[in-house]
Formats: sequence, C-alpha cells, structure tokens
Amino acid sequence: MSGVNVFVSPPLSSPRQSRVRRPLRIAIFGFGTVGSSVARILVESRPEGLELTHVFNRRIERKRVDWTPADVEWSEDANAVLASDVDVVVELAGGLDPAGDWVRRALDSGKSVVTANKKLIAFYGIELERLAESRGCHLKYGAAVAGGIPVIPGLEQGLAGDRIDRVEGILNGTCNFILSQMDDGAEYTAVLAEAQARGYAEADPTEDVGGFDARAKLAILMRLALRVSVNPEEIQPRAIEQVSAIDFSYARDLGCTIRQVARAERAGADVAAAVGPTLVALRSPLAWSRGTENMVILRGRYGGDVVFSGHGAGGHPTAVAVVSDLLALAHGSRRVEIPAVKASVGAEFEVPHYIRFLVDDRPGIVAEITTCLARERINIRAILQKPGHPAHALPFVVTVEPCKSSALQRALGSIRTMDCHRAEPLDLQMLE
Amino acid sequence: MSGVNVFVSPPLSSPRQSRVRRPLRIAIFGFGTVGSSVARILVESRPEGLELTHVFNRRIERKRVDWTPADVEWSEDANAVLASDVDVVVELAGGLDPAGDWVRRALDSGKSVVTANKKLIAFYGIELERLAESRGCHLKYGAAVAGGIPVIPGLEQGLAGDRIDRVEGILNGTCNFILSQMDDGAEYTAVLAEAQARGYAEADPTEDVGGFDARAKLAILMRLALRVSVNPEEIQPRAIEQVSAIDFSYARDLGCTIRQVARAERAGADVAAAVGPTLVALRSPLAWSRGTENMVILRGRYGGDVVFSGHGAGGHPTAVAVVSDLLALAHGSRRVEIPAVKASVGAEFEVPHYIRFLVDDRPGIVAEITTCLARERINIRAILQKPGHPAHALPFVVTVEPCKSSALQRALGSIRTMDCHRAEPLDLQMLE
Repeated sequence: MSGVNVFVSPPLSSPRQSRVRRPLRIAIFGFGTVGSSVARILVESRPEGLELTHVFNRRIERKRVDWTPADVEWSEDANAVLASDVDVVVELAGGLDPAGDWVRRALDSGKSVVTANKKLIAFYGIELERLAESRGCHLKYGAAVAGGIPVIPGLEQGLAGDRIDRVEGILNGTCNFILSQMDDGAEYTAVLAEAQARGYAEADPTEDVGGFDARAKLAILMRLALRVSVNPEEIQPRAIEQVSAIDFSYARDLGCTIRQVARAERAGADVAAAVGPTLVALRSPLAWSRGTENMVILRGRYGGDVVFSGHGAGGHPTAVAVVSDLLALAHGSRRVEIPAVKASVGAEFEVPHYIRFLVDDRPGIVAEITTCLARERINIRAILQKPGHPAHALPFVVTVEPCKSSALQRALGSIRTMDCHRAEPLDLQMLE
Repeated sequence: MSGVNVFVSPPLSSPRQSRVRRPLRIAIFGFGTVGSSVARILVESRPEGLELTHVFNRRIERKRVDWTPADVEWSEDANAVLASDVDVVVELAGGLDPAGDWVRRALDSGKSVVTANKKLIAFYGIELERLAESRGCHLKYGAAVAGGIPVIPGLEQGLAGDRIDRVEGILNGTCNFILSQMDDGAEYTAVLAEAQARGYAEADPTEDVGGFDARAKLAILMRLALRVSVNPEEIQPRAIEQVSAIDFSYARDLGCTIRQVARAERAGADVAAAVGPTLVALRSPLAWSRGTENMVILRGRYGGDVVFSGHGAGGHPTAVAVVSDLLALAHGSRRVEIPAVKASVGAEFEVPHYIRFLVDDRPGIVAEITTCLARERINIRAILQKPGHPAHALPFVVTVEPCKSSALQRALGSIRTMDCHRAEPLDLQMLE
C-alpha cells in the first residue's frame, strides 16, 4: 500500500466551551457479566459525563435489576434503541452476528461505539474505524484485548513514539488457568471441567483452547503494535489439548513451564505470527502469569521491553476498560492514529524446539529420529528420557538448537512415517 | 533507518478540511541524553505531524550534532526560542529553576509543553495545568514517571474508569540497580561507585539514594491514581544506605529480597505514603525488577492489580514517552481529566516489620527488646540469629506481625535507649 499521506492535525488550542455540556447517553447492548459490571461501575462511581440510559438484551425481563436509576430504559428491541437519542452504543454481545450489524448501524447513524468484541475488531476493525471517521463519531475497543490491562491505550498513547518489533502475550485466561493448574499436577480433562464449572470456559471450549480467541486478540495487537493489517485466519493456531502431564515434567527439567503464547514479530516486509502451547523459561515474565491472568510484552526498538500484566478477563476488569473508553469519549480524547499497512502472515520463526515422542520401544529409534533431523541440518541440544515408563508407551524428549520452523516440519514429516509412534510427536517452540 | 517507509500509509481516517495542516514545530530545551534521544527518534522515525525546529542548550556549540536537518536552529538564547513560532516546548533540563520559569513562560504564551521533569510536576503540576488550560494549550508529562513505561497514559486512559486504592512502585532505577547488585553479593559503596561510573548515579547521589526522586514520582502517581493533590515534602523518604549485606542474607532466609519501594494507599479521607528500602517477597512482582528497571503496581477496586514493568530511565525509553506525548498533541488527543482533592500525607501503615539489630552481646538483650515490643502490643513473628559473627558486633533480626508504624516507632524509641547498640536498629516494612 502506498499513497499520499497528508498529515492533518486539529487545532492545538481548544476553547473551554468544547467540554462536555451534557452527559453522554449510553446504551448497553448485552447485559451479561461484563454488561452488568459496566452498569455497576456507572451507577456506583458515577463518572462525570456518563449517563446510562438504555439496556438492550434479548428476553430482557430475565436481566432487569433493581439497582439502576429508575429512568433507564430496558428493551429487547435493538432497532428502537439504535433509533433512540443515545450518544454511545456499548456493544458487549460478542461475535460477528448480529453484533456487527448493530455496530455498523450505530456508527452509520453517527453514534460512537465502545466494544469488547475482539472477533469483530480483528476481522472488521479497519473498515469500522473508517466508517466512524466518515460519520464524525468514534470506535473504541480498549476492552477487546487483555480486558483490564491498559495495553491498547498504552500502545496508542504511551508507546506511539516507539517502533514495536515484537509482541508476545498470554491473551487467553482460560488456557492460562488450565495450563497453570496442569503445571501444579492436574490433568487436562479434570481442569477443563473445573474451568467450565467456574465459568472460565464455555461448554464448547474450542474458541479458547483451540487458540482462536487469542488469535483474534493477537491480530488486533499486530495492528497497533507492528502496524500491520492482517487477515486473522492466516494465523494458524495450535490447540493446547495435546499437552500432557509428562510435558510439564520434562519442561521443568529444562527450567521451563508451558503457556499458551501468542506472538508476532517483523520478518522483512511481512510478519511471522504463532499462537499455541509454548515452552517458556521459568525466569521469563511469561512464566509469572498464573490462573486467569493475562500478560503482554512489547519489544520497542527505542524503549526496550515493556511488560503489562493483570486480570485479562472477567466482568469487572473488562468493564473498567469499557468505562475508561467511555470517559475518553466524554473528554474528547482522540486516539493517536496509528497507520498500518496490509501484510501477509508467515509462521517462520527461528527458535529452539522441544519434541516429545511416545513410542513402542525398539532398537534404533533415536538413531532414525536424529538422522531425520540431521538431514535438515538441525542440531540436537538434549535428549531426555525419564525412567518408570513401560517400553510399549515410552515418552522421551529431544530438544533442538534454534532452527527454522519449516525445516523442523520437514524433519517431522519424515519422522512421522516411522512405525514406532504411539501418539503424534508433539513439537513446541521454546522461548528463552 | 531502512524500514521507515514501511510505516507510511494513507491515514485510516479521511482528513477533515478544517484542521490545521502543518506539523507541530518543536523546540527541545536541554540537549543531554534524553534530549538527543528525542531528536534521534524524530529524525530517524519521522513521526507524522512532528518537526524539530529548535534546540536550546547552554554553551550550545558543545552539543551541536550533524545528523539533524540543516534548518534546525541551535540556540543558547532561551528567550529567543521562547519568543519564536514554535508550537511545543520540550523541557528536558530538569529541576525547578530555571526550567520552571521556561515552562511557565511557554504556557503563558500559548505554547504547549512536554516535560520529563518530575520535580516540577510534583510540586507545581496542578498550577501549571491550570495555566495551560487558561491559555488553551497543553501540558504533558508522560516521561516524568517510569520513563518508557506507559503508566501515566495507562492511568489517564485505560484505568480512568476504575478507582485505584493503592500504588506500589519501584520508581528509581539507580536504587534498584544498587539493591539488586547487593542482592547478588556486592557491597553498597562498591556498587554506588559502579553506578556512578556507568552514569546511573550522580556524583552527589542523595536525590536518588535518599528517596527524593522516587518521592516526587510517587506524588505524581498519587495525583493520577489516588486522585489526591499532596505536598511532596509531607512524604518522608528513607535512604537505602543503611541496608547492608547481612540484611540481604536475612531477607533471603525470610523468602524475601530488599527493594526501594514507593507506595501509597487511601487511609480514610487522607492517604498514607512511604518511600524507602522495603522487604518484598521473592514471589511478588516487585522482586522481579532487576537492574535499572522500574515497575508500578496499581490496585483497582474493580480491575484488581495491574502491573507495568520496563525500562524506567535512560535516554531512549524516556524519549519514547516524550515523543508519544508529542504525537498525542499532534493528534489532538486530550487527556481524560482526573479530578483531585487536596489531602495530607500520613505514614501510618499496618504491615509486618523486619528489625535488624547490631549489638555488643550481653545477657538479657532479647528479653529487653521483646518487652519494649510487648508494651506496644506488638507480636513477634520470628527471631533470627545467624552464627559466625563476633559477640561484640552481633547482628540479629526480629520480625513482627502486622502493627501500626506509630506503635513500632514508639517501641523502637525505648529500644534505642538500650546501651548495647553498635549501630542504629534498622526497621523495614515487609510487603507480603
């Protein structure tokens, strides 16, 4: 993408009268956990310049509460609320449909939108920002990534002067809860059931454990941090389900633990991105994150590494981000526009790898595996085999020196044809 | 500088014809480490809407470099630069005088100011903000606290919707360098000399090691996080010099290390604040910070703990914060105005304490000390005495259960009158 890039700045001097004259009238679309937390903060904290006037939800009578002001209108008619005199629509329904339609219609009619909808922003954010701009209103989505952690304002305001070359994050609280519980000895299926019972995971957990949720958030961070606009579907996520107790045990021997890491970095004109279970050094900030916490590490060319950590999900933390966006709208705080170019996403990283095998033991297996790796010029760093496992289902681990992901995949292609495997070999990137 | 063109793309938004169409003209006051880093980023990254036009410094010829655009005016006449047509003064001289005079005159004439001057903002921030407001210009100071870590934008934008009840931070890189080196076995005087040789500490290190620098930063954070305007001089800092190798050794036995911590929390209508060496649990985020890194932990009523960490000082990280503030000005991003009330500062915390004694041993010392503590109803948690020290200069440690700072000070008042002390007892708060 190229073209004329005219910078246009608004006048610096802003007369005092330009301040909010009347509070922004706010409609909440979707009165679930986050929606009711937003209402709770608006009612309890009464932030200046914000007034909750409408709540929309399907089957609204189930949702109605008694602690909001009496004049709040409760509605199950989205069209009526969109046609009302509200100034801002807070979209908390999630998903592409019908939320996308509501957001487009709100912006099209000049109403600003605050949303926590990572999927909508990851796929249609740029289009929606253009629509907002053309209608003289605003789209804000500070709650879409890492909930209560102000990483989006941090990128738009405090780090806009840097050039970010790399993003690493723990962006999905469900996966972090599952993996940090497994780190303490629990088994995957048991922890998943517990996460579902606690409301951290959906009945169908694919969106979380399959990496799709983290992928959407990573795409948004890539847009703001690496300044590239990508098709989120070009990022191939890997599920955490393949990781088992034995992997945590071997990881520990290697001075590591396992986390679902979403990461992206510049690779020439394009970018490389990955989402999936990853070995992280115990001394790395990524290993500090436990439970449902989120973390984002940005590597700036000038400022070095900046780490943000906190509660990435949950009603109240996400609601803080929503209310902060509403306050920014009320105070006329324009975001620093961060330009972006279209880029395609590669998956080529050059890092060490951990490969765990589960084999029906016979002589010559290690020789064959190491031959396949040597053929791709991949150097072995360590071979680990713990005692106490039966020979017909023997787990062991090979770690390799930094090599290109593509070379490793070719080697694994050959290794997979061997007749000894009791399970697919599991290869994980190692971050040092 | 290759790759700069990658970022140039059409703005996402369609420009409004009515807006001003020229870049902001920028004067840098003070061309030291940070000033030259700001110039470097402006020249290398060419952020949209920013143009370096003037550099002011005393004895400017020593400072002139050959890599800035030819039309930049180098001047040692502050009055002439203040009278010129620059839009923004970037004040990087530091200290109250004459920097304060330049900042006031710039704002008074309608020029916006971006500054990294924590002392000026801590003492006169509110007055200067009012002046800027009355003249229709802006004052930004994102670089004044924790350099490259976007904690000020985070508070103004992403966390404005929360109510922050507590601030804890490692705000002085020099102290953190000294204490983390001592943690690794170095002695105070040797590390201080190394810090001075590396340029981390001044010839007179009082401002840093005495806690005055961290105190000014804490006062700014209290204003934005706790929403109180305080007189920084009401915060009594404690110097790190009293801490010695034996304290790190005992701290380690207690599962802790020692950091210079600046902290403040609400205490009824007022606030409690402290700056000084503190025992922090090794599993606490505060213990993660090593070398010259900074860290800020904010506890929100709704969002829980948010941790920011990164390079708090140094030319490039601080310059990133300055350039980000300039971009926010160029994009017309108004800050969310955070209201504040005047408050007086107390020093009353209720936490466990570590007390280290150095005594000329004789029978009955522990009995006398514990009697003084018991008189104030302070419960002892542990008494630690490592072997291998001479009886005439015997160090030992008493830790006590959470008690009010005032009660402990009364007890220490009595304990100090004992004739056995070879050094002042050292009492440190313990954070768990």
